[in-house]
Amino acid sequence: MQYPLPIARLIDSFMKLPGIGEKTATRLAFYAMDMPKEDVQEFSQALTDVKEKLRQCSVCGNITEQDPCAICSNPARDQSTIMVVEEAKDVMAFENMGEYDGLYHVLHGVLSPMDGIGPEQINIKSLIVRLQKNDAVKEVILALNSTPEGESTAMYISRLIKPAGLKVTRLAAGLAVGSDIEYANLITLKRAVQGRTEL
Amino acid sequence: MQYPLPIARLIDSFMKLPGIGEKTATRLAFYAMDMPKEDVQEFSQALTDVKEKLRQCSVCGNITEQDPCAICSNPARDQSTIMVVEEAKDVMAFENMGEYDGLYHVLHGVLSPMDGIGPEQINIKSLIVRLQKNDAVKEVILALNSTPEGESTAMYISRLIKPAGLKVTRLAAGLAVGSDIEYANLITLKRAVQGRTEL
Repeated sequence: MQYPLPIARLIDSFMKLPGIGEKTATRLAFYAMDMPKEDVQEFSQALTDVKEKLRQCSVCGNITEQDPCAICSNPARDQSTIMVVEEAKDVMAFENMGEYDGLYHVLHGVLSPMDGIGPEQINIKSLIVRLQKNDAVKEVILALNSTPEGESTAMYISRLIKPAGLKVTRLAAGLAVGSDIEYANLITLKRAVQGRTEL
Repeated sequence: MQYPLPIARLIDSFMKLPGIGEKTATRLAFYAMDMPKEDVQEFSQALTDVKEKLRQCSVCGNITEQDPCAICSNPARDQSTIMVVEEAKDVMAFENMGEYDGLYHVLHGVLSPMDGIGPEQINIKSLIVRLQKNDAVKEVILALNSTPEGESTAMYISRLIKPAGLKVTRLAAGLAVGSDIEYANLITLKRAVQGRTEL
Protein backbone atom coordinates (compact mmCIF):
# COMPACT_ATOMS: atom_id res chain seq x y z
CA MET A 1 0.00 0.00 0.00
CA GLN A 2 1.13 3.49 -0.82
CA TYR A 3 0.49 6.80 0.90
CA PRO A 4 -2.62 8.62 -0.32
CA LEU A 5 -1.73 10.38 -3.56
CA PRO A 6 -1.66 13.99 -2.25
CA ILE A 7 0.83 13.11 0.46
CA ALA A 8 2.92 10.94 -1.87
CA ARG A 9 3.18 13.90 -4.23
CA LEU A 10 4.22 16.23 -1.44
CA ILE A 11 6.89 13.75 -0.30
CA ASP A 12 8.20 13.64 -3.89
CA SER A 13 8.35 17.44 -4.00
CA PHE A 14 10.26 17.69 -0.73
CA MET A 15 12.69 15.05 -2.00
CA LYS A 16 13.63 17.31 -4.91
CA LEU A 17 15.21 19.74 -2.44
CA PRO A 18 18.92 19.35 -1.69
CA GLY A 19 19.87 17.27 1.34
CA ILE A 20 16.35 15.93 1.91
CA GLY A 21 15.93 12.17 1.60
CA GLU A 22 12.81 10.02 1.76
CA LYS A 23 12.57 9.79 5.57
CA THR A 24 12.94 13.54 6.09
CA ALA A 25 10.58 14.30 3.20
CA THR A 26 7.95 12.01 4.75
CA ARG A 27 8.35 13.69 8.13
CA LEU A 28 8.06 17.16 6.56
CA ALA A 29 5.03 16.19 4.46
CA PHE A 30 3.14 14.84 7.48
CA TYR A 31 4.15 17.90 9.46
CA ALA A 32 2.88 20.19 6.69
CA MET A 33 -0.42 18.31 6.68
CA ASP A 34 -0.92 19.18 10.35
CA MET A 35 0.12 22.83 9.98
CA PRO A 36 -2.56 25.59 10.20
CA LYS A 37 -4.33 26.03 6.88
CA GLU A 38 -3.14 29.65 6.47
CA ASP A 39 0.50 28.63 6.92
CA VAL A 40 0.19 25.98 4.21
CA GLN A 41 -1.55 28.42 1.87
CA GLU A 42 1.18 31.01 2.46
CA PHE A 43 3.85 28.38 1.80
CA SER A 44 2.14 27.34 -1.43
CA GLN A 45 1.72 30.96 -2.53
CA ALA A 46 5.34 31.81 -1.66
CA LEU A 47 6.54 29.00 -3.92
CA THR A 48 4.48 30.29 -6.83
CA ASP A 49 5.50 33.90 -6.20
CA VAL A 50 9.20 33.17 -6.03
CA LYS A 51 8.97 31.74 -9.54
CA GLU A 52 6.56 34.30 -10.99
CA LYS A 53 7.38 37.61 -9.30
CA LEU A 54 11.16 37.47 -9.19
CA ARG A 55 13.40 38.11 -12.15
CA GLN A 56 17.05 38.99 -12.78
CA CYS A 57 17.91 42.67 -12.94
CA SER A 58 18.76 43.46 -16.58
CA VAL A 59 21.70 45.62 -15.44
CA CYS A 60 23.45 43.65 -12.70
CA GLY A 61 21.77 40.21 -12.69
CA ASN A 62 20.67 40.50 -9.06
CA ILE A 63 17.33 38.95 -8.09
CA THR A 64 14.61 41.55 -7.92
CA GLU A 65 10.91 42.27 -8.15
CA GLN A 66 11.29 45.42 -10.25
CA ASP A 67 13.75 45.93 -13.11
CA PRO A 68 16.29 47.53 -12.77
CA CYS A 69 16.77 46.44 -9.16
CA ALA A 70 16.65 48.74 -6.11
CA ILE A 71 20.46 48.99 -6.00
CA CYS A 72 21.00 49.79 -9.71
CA SER A 73 18.22 52.40 -9.69
CA ASN A 74 19.46 54.16 -6.55
CA PRO A 75 21.43 57.30 -7.62
CA ALA A 76 22.80 57.72 -4.07
CA ARG A 77 25.00 54.64 -4.46
CA ASP A 78 28.62 55.00 -5.48
CA GLN A 79 28.52 54.59 -9.29
CA SER A 80 32.29 54.27 -9.59
CA THR A 81 32.63 50.80 -8.06
CA ILE A 82 31.21 47.45 -9.17
CA MET A 83 31.55 44.41 -6.96
CA VAL A 84 31.40 41.15 -8.93
CA VAL A 85 29.85 38.25 -6.95
CA GLU A 86 28.90 34.66 -7.74
CA GLU A 87 25.33 34.54 -6.45
CA ALA A 88 22.47 36.84 -5.45
CA LYS A 89 22.93 35.52 -1.91
CA ASP A 90 26.37 37.15 -1.85
CA VAL A 91 24.80 40.57 -2.57
CA MET A 92 22.67 40.09 0.55
CA ALA A 93 25.74 39.17 2.60
CA PHE A 94 27.54 42.39 1.60
CA GLU A 95 24.40 44.50 2.02
CA ASN A 96 23.93 43.12 5.52
CA MET A 97 27.56 44.01 6.27
CA GLY A 98 26.49 47.60 5.58
CA GLU A 99 29.87 49.14 4.67
CA TYR A 100 29.73 48.90 0.90
CA ASP A 101 27.61 51.33 -1.08
CA GLY A 102 28.76 50.74 -4.65
CA LEU A 103 27.08 48.63 -7.32
CA TYR A 104 27.09 44.87 -7.94
CA HIS A 105 27.31 42.41 -10.78
CA VAL A 106 26.02 38.89 -10.21
CA LEU A 107 27.67 36.18 -12.33
CA HIS A 108 25.23 33.39 -11.38
CA GLY A 109 28.03 30.87 -11.26
CA VAL A 110 31.75 30.48 -11.85
CA LEU A 111 33.80 29.08 -14.70
CA SER A 112 34.02 25.33 -14.37
CA PRO A 113 35.15 23.62 -17.57
CA MET A 114 34.70 20.18 -15.93
CA ASP A 115 30.97 20.89 -15.60
CA GLY A 116 30.75 22.49 -19.03
CA ILE A 117 30.43 26.01 -17.64
CA GLY A 118 32.37 28.43 -19.82
CA PRO A 119 32.26 32.25 -20.08
CA GLU A 120 29.02 32.08 -22.11
CA GLN A 121 27.15 30.21 -19.40
CA ILE A 122 27.64 32.90 -16.76
CA ASN A 123 26.97 36.63 -16.65
CA ILE A 124 30.42 37.83 -17.90
CA LYS A 125 29.47 39.32 -21.27
CA SER A 126 26.96 41.69 -19.70
CA LEU A 127 29.70 42.89 -17.32
CA ILE A 128 32.01 43.75 -20.24
CA VAL A 129 29.21 45.56 -22.09
CA ARG A 130 28.31 47.40 -18.90
CA LEU A 131 31.91 48.56 -18.39
CA GLN A 132 32.26 49.63 -22.03
CA LYS A 133 29.06 51.71 -21.87
CA ASN A 134 29.83 53.31 -18.54
CA ASP A 135 32.80 55.63 -18.01
CA ALA A 136 31.92 56.33 -14.38
CA VAL A 137 33.24 52.96 -13.18
CA LYS A 138 36.77 53.22 -11.78
CA GLU A 139 37.13 50.02 -9.75
CA VAL A 140 35.94 46.44 -10.10
CA ILE A 141 36.12 44.32 -6.94
CA LEU A 142 36.19 40.60 -7.70
CA ALA A 143 34.44 39.22 -4.60
CA LEU A 144 34.38 35.57 -5.66
CA ASN A 145 34.64 32.59 -3.37
CA SER A 146 38.09 31.40 -2.38
CA THR A 147 37.67 28.14 -4.32
CA PRO A 148 39.74 26.99 -7.32
CA GLU A 149 36.79 27.88 -9.61
CA GLY A 150 36.31 31.26 -7.94
CA GLU A 151 40.01 32.10 -8.22
CA SER A 152 40.28 31.11 -11.88
CA THR A 153 37.10 33.02 -12.74
CA ALA A 154 38.59 36.09 -11.04
CA MET A 155 41.81 35.69 -13.06
CA TYR A 156 39.81 35.31 -16.28
CA ILE A 157 37.74 38.45 -15.69
CA SER A 158 40.76 40.40 -14.50
CA ARG A 159 42.65 39.63 -17.72
CA LEU A 160 39.62 40.74 -19.79
CA ILE A 161 39.00 44.08 -18.11
CA LYS A 162 42.40 45.24 -16.83
CA PRO A 163 43.61 46.43 -20.28
CA ALA A 164 40.82 49.06 -20.16
CA GLY A 165 42.74 50.82 -17.37
CA LEU A 166 40.35 49.89 -14.57
CA LYS A 167 41.47 49.22 -11.01
CA VAL A 168 40.76 45.53 -10.42
CA THR A 169 40.89 44.27 -6.81
CA ARG A 170 39.99 41.13 -4.95
CA LEU A 171 39.03 40.47 -1.33
CA ALA A 172 41.80 39.99 1.21
CA ALA A 173 42.60 36.38 2.00
CA GLY A 174 43.79 35.37 5.45
CA LEU A 175 42.69 33.96 8.77
CA ALA A 176 38.97 34.12 9.50
CA VAL A 177 38.34 36.34 12.52
CA GLY A 178 37.92 34.13 15.57
CA SER A 179 39.63 31.13 13.95
CA ASP A 180 42.65 29.18 15.22
CA ILE A 181 45.98 29.23 13.39
CA GLU A 182 46.29 25.58 14.36
CA TYR A 183 43.31 24.61 12.23
CA ALA A 184 43.95 26.92 9.26
CA ASN A 185 44.88 25.19 6.01
CA LEU A 186 48.30 25.76 4.43
CA ILE A 187 47.16 28.01 1.58
CA THR A 188 45.22 30.24 3.98
CA LEU A 189 48.29 30.55 6.23
CA LYS A 190 50.49 31.35 3.24
CA ARG A 191 48.09 34.08 2.11
CA ALA A 192 47.84 35.46 5.64
CA VAL A 193 51.63 35.81 5.84
CA GLN A 194 51.95 37.27 2.31
CA GLY A 195 49.22 39.82 3.04
CA ARG A 196 50.42 40.79 6.53
CA THR A 197 49.71 44.41 7.50
CA GLU A 198 51.61 46.82 9.74
CA LEU A 199 50.26 47.55 13.22
CA MET B 1 18.62 45.52 3.15
CA GLN B 2 16.28 42.55 3.12
CA TYR B 3 15.73 39.83 0.58
CA PRO B 4 13.08 40.66 -2.03
CA LEU B 5 9.67 40.02 -0.44
CA PRO B 6 8.75 36.81 -2.32
CA ILE B 7 11.96 35.08 -1.29
CA ALA B 8 11.76 36.39 2.29
CA ARG B 9 8.27 34.89 2.53
CA LEU B 10 9.44 31.55 1.19
CA ILE B 11 12.31 31.51 3.71
CA ASP B 12 9.78 32.17 6.49
CA SER B 13 7.62 29.29 5.28
CA PHE B 14 10.54 26.85 5.17
CA MET B 15 11.51 27.94 8.69
CA LYS B 16 8.13 26.79 9.98
CA LEU B 17 9.10 23.19 9.20
CA PRO B 18 10.72 21.15 11.97
CA GLY B 19 14.53 21.08 12.07
CA ILE B 20 14.95 23.84 9.47
CA GLY B 21 16.71 26.99 10.65
CA GLU B 22 17.35 30.27 8.85
CA LYS B 23 20.47 29.18 6.95
CA THR B 24 18.90 25.98 5.64
CA ALA B 25 15.64 27.78 4.82
CA THR B 26 17.58 30.38 2.81
CA ARG B 27 19.45 27.67 0.94
CA LEU B 28 16.21 25.82 0.17
CA ALA B 29 14.40 28.99 -0.93
CA PHE B 30 17.17 29.95 -3.36
CA TYR B 31 17.27 26.37 -4.60
CA ALA B 32 13.50 26.38 -5.16
CA MET B 33 13.83 29.61 -7.13
CA ASP B 34 16.17 27.87 -9.55
CA MET B 35 14.07 24.73 -9.88
CA PRO B 36 12.13 24.06 -13.12
CA LYS B 37 8.83 25.91 -13.16
CA GLU B 38 6.75 22.69 -13.33
CA ASP B 39 8.49 21.28 -10.24
CA VAL B 40 7.71 24.42 -8.25
CA GLN B 41 4.09 24.42 -9.44
CA GLU B 42 3.74 20.75 -8.47
CA PHE B 43 5.24 21.50 -5.06
CA SER B 44 2.85 24.41 -4.54
CA GLN B 45 -0.12 22.31 -5.68
CA ALA B 46 0.91 19.37 -3.49
CA LEU B 47 0.89 21.63 -0.44
CA THR B 48 -2.60 22.88 -1.21
CA ASP B 49 -3.87 19.37 -1.99
CA VAL B 50 -2.52 17.80 1.16
CA LYS B 51 -4.60 20.28 3.14
CA GLU B 52 -7.71 20.24 0.96
CA LYS B 53 -8.02 16.71 -0.40
CA LEU B 54 -7.04 14.66 2.64
CA ARG B 55 -9.28 14.03 5.63
CA GLN B 56 -9.46 11.60 8.51
CA CYS B 57 -11.44 8.42 7.94
CA SER B 58 -14.60 8.71 10.06
CA VAL B 59 -14.24 5.07 11.10
CA CYS B 60 -10.57 4.57 11.94
CA GLY B 61 -9.02 8.05 11.84
CA ASN B 62 -6.51 7.11 9.14
CA ILE B 63 -5.62 9.75 6.56
CA THR B 64 -7.52 9.24 3.34
CA GLU B 65 -8.91 10.83 0.21
CA GLN B 66 -12.27 9.01 0.35
CA ASP B 67 -14.31 8.33 3.50
CA PRO B 68 -14.33 5.63 4.80
CA CYS B 69 -10.74 4.82 3.89
CA ALA B 70 -9.59 2.04 1.55
CA ILE B 71 -8.82 -0.27 4.47
CA CYS B 72 -12.10 0.22 6.35
CA SER B 73 -14.14 -0.23 3.16
CA ASN B 74 -12.33 -3.39 2.06
CA PRO B 75 -14.50 -6.41 3.01
CA ALA B 76 -11.59 -8.79 2.30
CA ARG B 77 -9.71 -7.56 5.37
CA ASP B 78 -9.95 -9.46 8.64
CA GLN B 79 -12.79 -7.68 10.46
CA SER B 80 -12.03 -9.40 13.77
CA THR B 81 -8.80 -7.54 14.58
CA ILE B 82 -8.15 -3.85 15.17
CA MET B 83 -4.60 -2.56 15.50
CA VAL B 84 -4.43 0.69 17.49
CA VAL B 85 -1.59 2.97 16.38
CA GLU B 86 -0.41 6.47 17.26
CA GLU B 87 -0.11 8.06 13.83
CA ALA B 88 -1.19 7.52 10.23
CA LYS B 89 2.50 6.95 9.40
CA ASP B 90 2.37 3.82 11.56
CA VAL B 91 -0.44 2.40 9.41
CA MET B 92 1.87 2.77 6.42
CA ALA B 93 4.69 1.02 8.24
CA PHE B 94 2.50 -2.00 9.01
CA GLU B 95 0.98 -2.02 5.52
CA ASN B 96 4.45 -2.03 3.99
CA MET B 97 5.34 -4.96 6.26
CA GLY B 98 2.58 -6.80 4.43
CA GLU B 99 1.74 -9.47 7.02
CA TYR B 100 -1.21 -7.83 8.76
CA ASP B 101 -4.59 -7.77 7.07
CA GLY B 102 -6.91 -6.63 9.87
CA LEU B 103 -8.23 -3.15 10.53
CA TYR B 104 -6.64 -0.11 12.21
CA HIS B 105 -7.51 2.66 14.62
CA VAL B 106 -5.36 5.80 14.56
CA LEU B 107 -5.21 7.70 17.87
CA HIS B 108 -3.45 10.79 16.47
CA GLY B 109 -1.31 11.11 19.57
CA VAL B 110 -0.77 9.56 22.99
CA LEU B 111 -1.83 10.53 26.47
CA SER B 112 0.56 13.13 27.84
CA PRO B 113 -0.81 14.96 30.88
CA MET B 114 2.31 17.19 30.99
CA ASP B 115 1.38 18.58 27.56
CA GLY B 116 -2.32 18.77 28.41
CA ILE B 117 -3.23 15.80 26.24
CA GLY B 118 -5.89 13.71 27.96
CA PRO B 119 -8.23 11.01 26.62
CA GLU B 120 -10.50 13.64 25.03
CA GLN B 121 -7.66 15.08 22.92
CA ILE B 122 -6.95 11.83 21.11
CA ASN B 123 -9.07 9.35 19.18
CA ILE B 124 -9.98 7.01 22.09
CA LYS B 125 -13.72 7.64 22.37
CA SER B 126 -14.33 6.67 18.75
CA LEU B 127 -12.48 3.40 19.42
CA ILE B 128 -14.79 2.56 22.33
CA VAL B 129 -17.89 3.43 20.27
CA ARG B 130 -16.54 1.36 17.38
CA LEU B 131 -16.00 -1.67 19.65
CA GLN B 132 -19.45 -1.33 21.24
CA LYS B 133 -21.17 -1.20 17.85
CA ASN B 134 -19.21 -4.03 16.33
CA ASP B 135 -19.41 -7.60 17.64
CA ALA B 136 -17.08 -8.97 14.95
CA VAL B 137 -13.96 -7.61 16.67
CA LYS B 138 -12.23 -10.27 18.78
CA GLU B 139 -8.75 -8.81 19.27
CA VAL B 140 -7.31 -5.34 19.78
CA ILE B 141 -3.55 -5.02 19.20
CA LEU B 142 -2.08 -2.00 20.96
CA ALA B 143 0.78 -1.14 18.60
CA LEU B 144 1.95 2.01 20.37
CA ASN B 145 5.51 3.27 20.59
CA SER B 146 7.73 1.91 23.34
CA THR B 147 7.87 5.29 25.09
CA PRO B 148 6.55 6.13 28.57
CA GLU B 149 3.57 7.91 26.95
CA GLY B 150 2.94 5.04 24.54
CA GLU B 151 3.05 2.49 27.36
CA SER B 152 0.73 4.42 29.64
CA THR B 153 -1.72 5.05 26.80
CA ALA B 154 -1.72 1.31 26.10
CA MET B 155 -2.42 0.58 29.78
CA TYR B 156 -5.24 3.15 29.82
CA ILE B 157 -6.96 1.72 26.73
CA SER B 158 -6.42 -1.85 27.90
CA ARG B 159 -8.17 -1.13 31.20
CA LEU B 160 -11.09 0.47 29.34
CA ILE B 161 -11.74 -2.31 26.84
CA LYS B 162 -10.63 -5.53 28.55
CA PRO B 163 -13.78 -5.81 30.70
CA ALA B 164 -15.77 -6.29 27.46
CA GLY B 165 -14.08 -9.70 27.07
CA LEU B 166 -11.84 -8.72 24.14
CA LYS B 167 -8.38 -10.16 23.64
CA VAL B 168 -6.01 -7.21 24.13
CA THR B 169 -2.40 -7.66 23.00
CA ARG B 170 0.66 -5.50 22.55
CA LEU B 171 3.71 -5.81 20.31
CA ALA B 172 6.63 -7.92 21.52
CA ALA B 173 9.42 -5.91 23.13
CA GLY B 174 13.00 -7.09 22.86
CA LEU B 175 16.22 -6.67 20.95
CA ALA B 176 15.91 -5.03 17.56
CA VAL B 177 16.95 -7.45 14.83
CA GLY B 178 20.56 -6.72 13.90
CA SER B 179 21.30 -4.84 17.12
CA ASP B 180 24.04 -5.54 19.67
CA ILE B 181 23.25 -6.72 23.20
CA GLU B 182 26.14 -4.54 24.34
CA TYR B 183 24.33 -1.38 23.28
CA ALA B 184 20.78 -2.33 24.33
CA ASN B 185 19.35 -0.33 27.23
CA LEU B 186 18.47 -2.06 30.51
CA ILE B 187 14.70 -2.04 30.08
CA THR B 188 14.98 -3.52 26.59
CA LEU B 189 17.24 -6.27 27.91
CA LYS B 190 14.85 -6.97 30.78
CA ARG B 191 11.93 -7.27 28.36
CA ALA B 192 13.94 -9.48 26.04
CA VAL B 193 14.68 -11.90 28.88
CA GLN B 194 11.12 -11.83 30.21
CA GLY B 195 9.70 -12.50 26.76
CA ARG B 196 12.19 -15.21 25.76
CA THR B 197 10.78 -17.86 23.42
CA GLU B 198 11.61 -21.56 23.06
CA LEU B 199 13.69 -22.68 20.10
